[in-house]
Amino acid sequence: MADKKRVYLFGGGSADGSAKLKDLLGGKGANLAEMARIGVPVPPGFTITTETCIDYYNLGEAKIRELLEKDVVNAIHFVEQKTGKKFGDTENPLLVSVRSGARVSMPGMMDTVLNLGINDDAVQGLAKKTGNERFAWDSYRRFIQMYGDVVMGVKPEKGEIDPYEKAIDEMKEKRGVKQDTELTADDLKELVEVFKGIVKKYTGRDFPTDPWEQLWGAIMAVFNSWNNERAIAYRRIHEIPDNWGTAVSVVAMVFGNMGNTSATGVAFTRDAATGEKRFNGEYLINAQGEDVVAGIRTPLKITKADSIAWAKANGISEDERREKYPSLEESMPNVYKQLYEIQDKLEHHYHDMQDIEFTIEEGHLWLLQTRNGKRTGLAMVRIALDMIDEGLIDEKEALLRVEPNKLNELLHPIFDPKALKTAKVITKGLPASPGAATGRVVFFADEAAEWAAKGEQVILVRLETSPEDIEGMNAAQGILTARGGMTSHAAVVARGMGKCAVVGAGEIDVDYDARQFTVGDTVIKEGDWISLNGSTGDVYQGKIHTIDPEIGGYFGRLMELADKYRVLGVRTNAETERDSAVARKFGAEGIGLARTEHMFFDGERIKHMREMILAETEEERRKALDKLLPYQKEDFKAIFRIMEGLSVTVRLLDPPLHEFLPHDEEAQQEVAKEMGVSVEKIKEKVEELHELNPMLGHRGCRLGNTYPEITEMQVRAILEAAIELKKEGIDAKPEIMVPLVGTDKELILQRQIIESTAEKVFADKGMSIEFKIGTMIEIPRAAITADEIGKVADFFSFGTNDLTQMTYGFSRDDVAKFLPIYLKKGMLEHDPFQVLDRKGVGQLVKMAVEKGRSVNPKIKLGICGEHGGEPSSVEFCHIVGLDYVSCSPFRVPIARLAAAQAAIRYPRS
Amino acid sequence: MADKKRVYLFGGGSADGSAKLKDLLGGKGANLAEMARIGVPVPPGFTITTETCIDYYNLGEAKIRELLEKDVVNAIHFVEQKTGKKFGDTENPLLVSVRSGARVSMPGMMDTVLNLGINDDAVQGLAKKTGNERFAWDSYRRFIQMYGDVVMGVKPEKGEIDPYEKAIDEMKEKRGVKQDTELTADDLKELVEVFKGIVKKYTGRDFPTDPWEQLWGAIMAVFNSWNNERAIAYRRIHEIPDNWGTAVSVVAMVFGNMGNTSATGVAFTRDAATGEKRFNGEYLINAQGEDVVAGIRTPLKITKADSIAWAKANGISEDERREKYPSLEESMPNVYKQLYEIQDKLEHHYHDMQDIEFTIEEGHLWLLQTRNGKRTGLAMVRIALDMIDEGLIDEKEALLRVEPNKLNELLHPIFDPKALKTAKVITKGLPASPGAATGRVVFFADEAAEWAAKGEQVILVRLETSPEDIEGMNAAQGILTARGGMTSHAAVVARGMGKCAVVGAGEIDVDYDARQFTVGDTVIKEGDWISLNGSTGDVYQGKIHTIDPEIGGYFGRLMELADKYRVLGVRTNAETERDSAVARKFGAEGIGLARTEHMFFDGERIKHMREMILAETEEERRKALDKLLPYQKEDFKAIFRIMEGLSVTVRLLDPPLHEFLPHDEEAQQEVAKEMGVSVEKIKEKVEELHELNPMLGHRGCRLGNTYPEITEMQVRAILEAAIELKKEGIDAKPEIMVPLVGTDKELILQRQIIESTAEKVFADKGMSIEFKIGTMIEIPRAAITADEIGKVADFFSFGTNDLTQMTYGFSRDDVAKFLPIYLKKGMLEHDPFQVLDRKGVGQLVKMAVEKGRSVNPKIKLGICGEHGGEPSSVEFCHIVGLDYVSCSPFRVPIARLAAAQAAIRYPRS
Repeated sequence: MADKKRVYLFGGGSADGSAKLKDLLGGKGANLAEMARIGVPVPPGFTITTETCIDYYNLGEAKIRELLEKDVVNAIHFVEQKTGKKFGDTENPLLVSVRSGARVSMPGMMDTVLNLGINDDAVQGLAKKTGNERFAWDSYRRFIQMYGDVVMGVKPEKGEIDPYEKAIDEMKEKRGVKQDTELTADDLKELVEVFKGIVKKYTGRDFPTDPWEQLWGAIMAVFNSWNNERAIAYRRIHEIPDNWGTAVSVVAMVFGNMGNTSATGVAFTRDAATGEKRFNGEYLINAQGEDVVAGIRTPLKITKADSIAWAKANGISEDERREKYPSLEESMPNVYKQLYEIQDKLEHHYHDMQDIEFTIEEGHLWLLQTRNGKRTGLAMVRIALDMIDEGLIDEKEALLRVEPNKLNELLHPIFDPKALKTAKVITKGLPASPGAATGRVVFFADEAAEWAAKGEQVILVRLETSPEDIEGMNAAQGILTARGGMTSHAAVVARGMGKCAVVGAGEIDVDYDARQFTVGDTVIKEGDWISLNGSTGDVYQGKIHTIDPEIGGYFGRLMELADKYRVLGVRTNAETERDSAVARKFGAEGIGLARTEHMFFDGERIKHMREMILAETEEERRKALDKLLPYQKEDFKAIFRIMEGLSVTVRLLDPPLHEFLPHDEEAQQEVAKEMGVSVEKIKEKVEELHELNPMLGHRGCRLGNTYPEITEMQVRAILEAAIELKKEGIDAKPEIMVPLVGTDKELILQRQIIESTAEKVFADKGMSIEFKIGTMIEIPRAAITADEIGKVADFFSFGTNDLTQMTYGFSRDDVAKFLPIYLKKGMLEHDPFQVLDRKGVGQLVKMAVEKGRSVNPKIKLGICGEHGGEPSSVEFCHIVGLDYVSCSPFRVPIARLAAAQAAIRYPRS
Repeated sequence: MADKKRVYLFGGGSADGSAKLKDLLGGKGANLAEMARIGVPVPPGFTITTETCIDYYNLGEAKIRELLEKDVVNAIHFVEQKTGKKFGDTENPLLVSVRSGARVSMPGMMDTVLNLGINDDAVQGLAKKTGNERFAWDSYRRFIQMYGDVVMGVKPEKGEIDPYEKAIDEMKEKRGVKQDTELTADDLKELVEVFKGIVKKYTGRDFPTDPWEQLWGAIMAVFNSWNNERAIAYRRIHEIPDNWGTAVSVVAMVFGNMGNTSATGVAFTRDAATGEKRFNGEYLINAQGEDVVAGIRTPLKITKADSIAWAKANGISEDERREKYPSLEESMPNVYKQLYEIQDKLEHHYHDMQDIEFTIEEGHLWLLQTRNGKRTGLAMVRIALDMIDEGLIDEKEALLRVEPNKLNELLHPIFDPKALKTAKVITKGLPASPGAATGRVVFFADEAAEWAAKGEQVILVRLETSPEDIEGMNAAQGILTARGGMTSHAAVVARGMGKCAVVGAGEIDVDYDARQFTVGDTVIKEGDWISLNGSTGDVYQGKIHTIDPEIGGYFGRLMELADKYRVLGVRTNAETERDSAVARKFGAEGIGLARTEHMFFDGERIKHMREMILAETEEERRKALDKLLPYQKEDFKAIFRIMEGLSVTVRLLDPPLHEFLPHDEEAQQEVAKEMGVSVEKIKEKVEELHELNPMLGHRGCRLGNTYPEITEMQVRAILEAAIELKKEGIDAKPEIMVPLVGTDKELILQRQIIESTAEKVFADKGMSIEFKIGTMIEIPRAAITADEIGKVADFFSFGTNDLTQMTYGFSRDDVAKFLPIYLKKGMLEHDPFQVLDRKGVGQLVKMAVEKGRSVNPKIKLGICGEHGGEPSSVEFCHIVGLDYVSCSPFRVPIARLAAAQAAIRYPRS
């Protein structure tokens, strides 16, 4: 044991460790070592290995201390030497932080102690050096509190008031002040003694004033925290082995508040908003990191150029600027120069845009942290592509650098930032479908369509939406609902349309009769302007100017690059002309799912549909279906035309028939009147069709197999449309998809109906065309028996929405009751309706792929669930060997990029 | 080709073929050959092989006729010789039937032609021989019709009236008669000519009068029928290879209506009702088979003893009997003797009770068919066991002989057959739960319980039942509902209770207000007597005496034998004292599923349960749960006591909470008043808990994981009950089962709650006990990830009800809308909720068994879905290697037998 290296030093331009030793030094320790190693000035310190943590559990505290003693003492001396400070010194005391750090980040799970080394002597030194006695004593009393909790285990009883808070309150009362900040240095000095008393009272032990004793206590406390309850729970949920252990990093504290040659700041190597290659950041002289964040003082710009621009924007004269708000470039030119060189070095070292934190202590620059900087979608794309040109990264790396979901920001309108400044947020809902929208409030879908037809921009506001509202939703700029979650009808349809939507805005009170809604005291009437931010969920009163996205050169170049590497095809889910056109513009290579039921809601169609449903005999049903046929055919022609030359997968009727009937009394009466039947008949039918679990009821191919005439009509419409276009010279490639198949028999029967209808159509039209017949795999049994179903299918399309519902036994409509708790408690890592569940649902997909190909090597395999546009799910589709994914139009670019990333990460042999 | 034997003769005490040649001769041909081979007199004939059918498709009709010509001609001569008749003869014509017959029975799929050989000459002979000119001409005109259809392809246009029917109607009009039977021989003779004209008109060909031509036409038609549409569809559904082909059997027709030395009849080798070894049957002199069935003439008994007993029962004097109703034993003693010997021979040959059809033609006995006879459950058991003693079969064979489901008949009360004679059936519903019940009508569950408490026998009549009715259902003799199917609440619960139930009796009109129900004109008031037959669905007016089943020596011996061979354990699903006691009496080896939710419906409990549901805070919930605890504990103690020494698996709360709240206005008001809260609050909660698909909603462990306090209370009740009994010296073996687990995380969390509660209980009680923690596997994902869940489960219990719902995507409550059509069209072979679907659901079970054992070899595996008591499903459970099945109490004997049969058929290595 004694021969193992347990303590790794860093600082002063060198380090024992490096980024490669993450397993041994933890993420934090390794990164500090790495920076030191490449010559970046980091506060000196040392890291005790993760192995030592495990040994601690095996050998016990005494033995570990014995093994570490010499090395730790030497390490502290090393730090003292590098900083010129001394542990417990009254003049220039060395204070350190003691931090945990495992191989992978376990945020907030384990313990950290700051300002260790402070005691009755060192506090003097700190006061002197900072010239701020209050700061020194405040640091001291905070340290006692933190150390008392973390290391010494001060734990108030359940229900008891926190004793430290109580002491502070008593002190404030005594002094007759309200705010903590009003307490003086002397008050805090007094509190330090009270706090020590608290520790003594709760632990029976004196607060340790010897820095060494403090240090050993903190090290052992960090080791212990590896096995605290929340860390164990976190590891269990994230499947982190118990025997990894945590490292302990001890790092010298540095202070940016030691006078006017001290400062603290943050900086970015490039512009995080635009991606422009431009060093930038903010800093404060004689301040601590917290001060920058707290916003009490105005932070200054680091570069002179930024400073000048900022002053100009704020109407500050150049003289005043130079005087009061100088840039770091001007106030500390040498430090600036050093910082500039470091940021350049870091970016070259890490090959990515860096977000850095620094402190200048008495003219000395220390880098406290560097990490890959967060950035907007726009910046992400630009930086990745620029870095190819700069030779920093290659094409594959550039593709991997862009988070596919961030592309969303590039595809939707955004609010004009200037206009936004004066806008008033009246409430917030769920950000259901991204983008920005502004328009006049309308409460009824049909009226939304009417207003829009007159050239008005409208926002459709509803308690919730239903399939009948589709047309109105399409006509609106955006949709706002009071109810429903991220997978509610409004949310799903809006995302499909690429239409801005905010849903579940529970605070709004919609009054259809009065044609207004209220939020608190604010009343918004029909015709009033509101604006929605579908990416944040914010709802604004008034009109806010929006700017359309610039799908510029960077975006186009990224997509080209993605197409160069991806293997998966990318299709779209679309059934309207508008959606199909958008999708094709975004690069969709066909339609993977055209739902036919939406086509039955408009105008006359819904009437004929209801006639069909109310029919008592096959003959009556056929009569009604005959009336629907021309509408369907026209719909298909429109789509086929746009998708000329590309495959279009049309799904036969899927939802249960009761969805087409009205469920409230009033609407029933209206329909009865319109159709010339008694309201009782409508009610009877609604009652007859009622289902306890419609999701698992009479729908999908169960309709087409009980009423073959429905299938016949749809097939006729599809094939007649294709033939009529062919006669015009337009190449339509229909694929007919049978939904909800659970047994091969169901598909066999549907196939017979489809084929015999096709023969009739071909005979009638005197022309035949090629088409495919396939099925959704969306029922677990279909996946399990894919080796039977595969024999009679030309293609499988995984309907992972329903497949997830049935594999998990989760109703999408009801899951909101427990899903949030499940996510919070870690019982689920993701919402399985957003991210495909690889272990469960994914295994069924994999099984179906293997079984399907085993009996039908030519079978075409795709996915058309919402997962088809979610990056991690796209990756899975690539891994299991699908041929294509299909997603909503606005997700097509995301899928293209995700597919490229998957191909780079998991090359198909 | 020429060297293949294509034609196999049989008759006259010998045969070319035998039962072993089923593949070549088809089932029918092989059985005829077998009978002939063992010397049973069957009408002579011959079979053309299935191979020839396939050759027919490859070589064409001309070539096949060439290949067959000589053999068929010889074969007909053989038949002529054996029968002494001649093809087309005017005196004694040979008529034959030409029948299809594949390896496996394809009932009604292919074609058959009877009375072939009849023509203008032969009809004379037939008239002479039968002395019945009308019969002869009627046979002729029927033959033309059948042959015209089957062989010559007469097909009226769609919508056209059948031309034969039209001709008959015209004839009747001409003669001024109403019934076909009123037409005379001359009329029929005239019709024969008209029919020939019809054939000519539709086919353009003359009707063939040459018997040989008729024969060749019929043979080719049978070959053709192998590939008719319905046969192809049938094969596809039943997975019968297209290349099996059909055989063609040509058999001499024999006639029992050729005077007083001719007769026809049916007989059984043993008593089909009681199983007694006693030859018995009925016959008619000078009659055709149809006459026995038609019931116009009273059939006579075959044995003298039966005849005497029958006469006595019907008040007929011995003289009159001997004169008018003699037994075959008396009327044709020699033939009787021959028949008696044959039946004995057949039983010895087939080693089973035979059901035989015979015809005596002019003193000549011909056996037309022998098959294993249908019998009652009682007879089935007795015959099987008697045959062991008689040395006819061994123990294993005897066990295999009893259809497990037939045991039902032995376990439930039946109506006294005498009482039944005068009873009036007023309507019929679905036979939901077997047995017979009689009692006074009560319409409300609570009143049913009250009446029963006063010693009244009651029948509970409801539109449908709900969980709140459980107590009343339990108190009633039987249950009758107007709505619902075989898996409705009433049906499922009644079967579980072993309680007679008739459901979905749609004709009855229940009027709760008037406390009566009507069927047509019949009004049944509260308090009136009715009787139910749960095995047939019949509903009787009035009281009918019932007799309790005699679970006599035969039953007991059969069960002992089953236990000797079975490997699977058999437990029961029970949660009441009554059910548990019944099940233990029937041999249950523990409880595999005790549902706890039913325990929350009685009296005070439901109040506390509702308090719990309405609670706004955890604290309030805990308070309500504390009140439920003592009830739960007492329930568990009662069950544990009965199941002393045996494992009892208790399932934690499973249904969604809204099931415990009232859904109609009136009940809500009542509950609000009772609980002292506003009705709005109740409504709000109902609304809040409402789910679109409750089956896939907030239930099962999702409750226990969102409200851990529910799990805590239940675990406390289970363990306290067990410990308190242990202190009394009673050995309780609880197993705690977590429902609806879909991820290992869910079980991990429940396990933590259970274990920490157990520690507390053990500490409180100062005593600990052993117990197991396991889970239902009822969600597809649980089966797929069983290698994760298995690590944290002591046992799996397959909940195949829910697993089937989710694997198929079928809601049990809604499936009635399409399941009947699916069964009819052959898209499903069985209702998957009754018979476990091996290909789909079964694969998930298999996967879970393998994955579960791979990580936890000691894991205990069982099934507790309704399938646990269904024979084919029990067999599957045996095959995949489960440890036990669990089923409703009255299914325990069935499961024991089915398990034995499975063990015999599929020995575990």
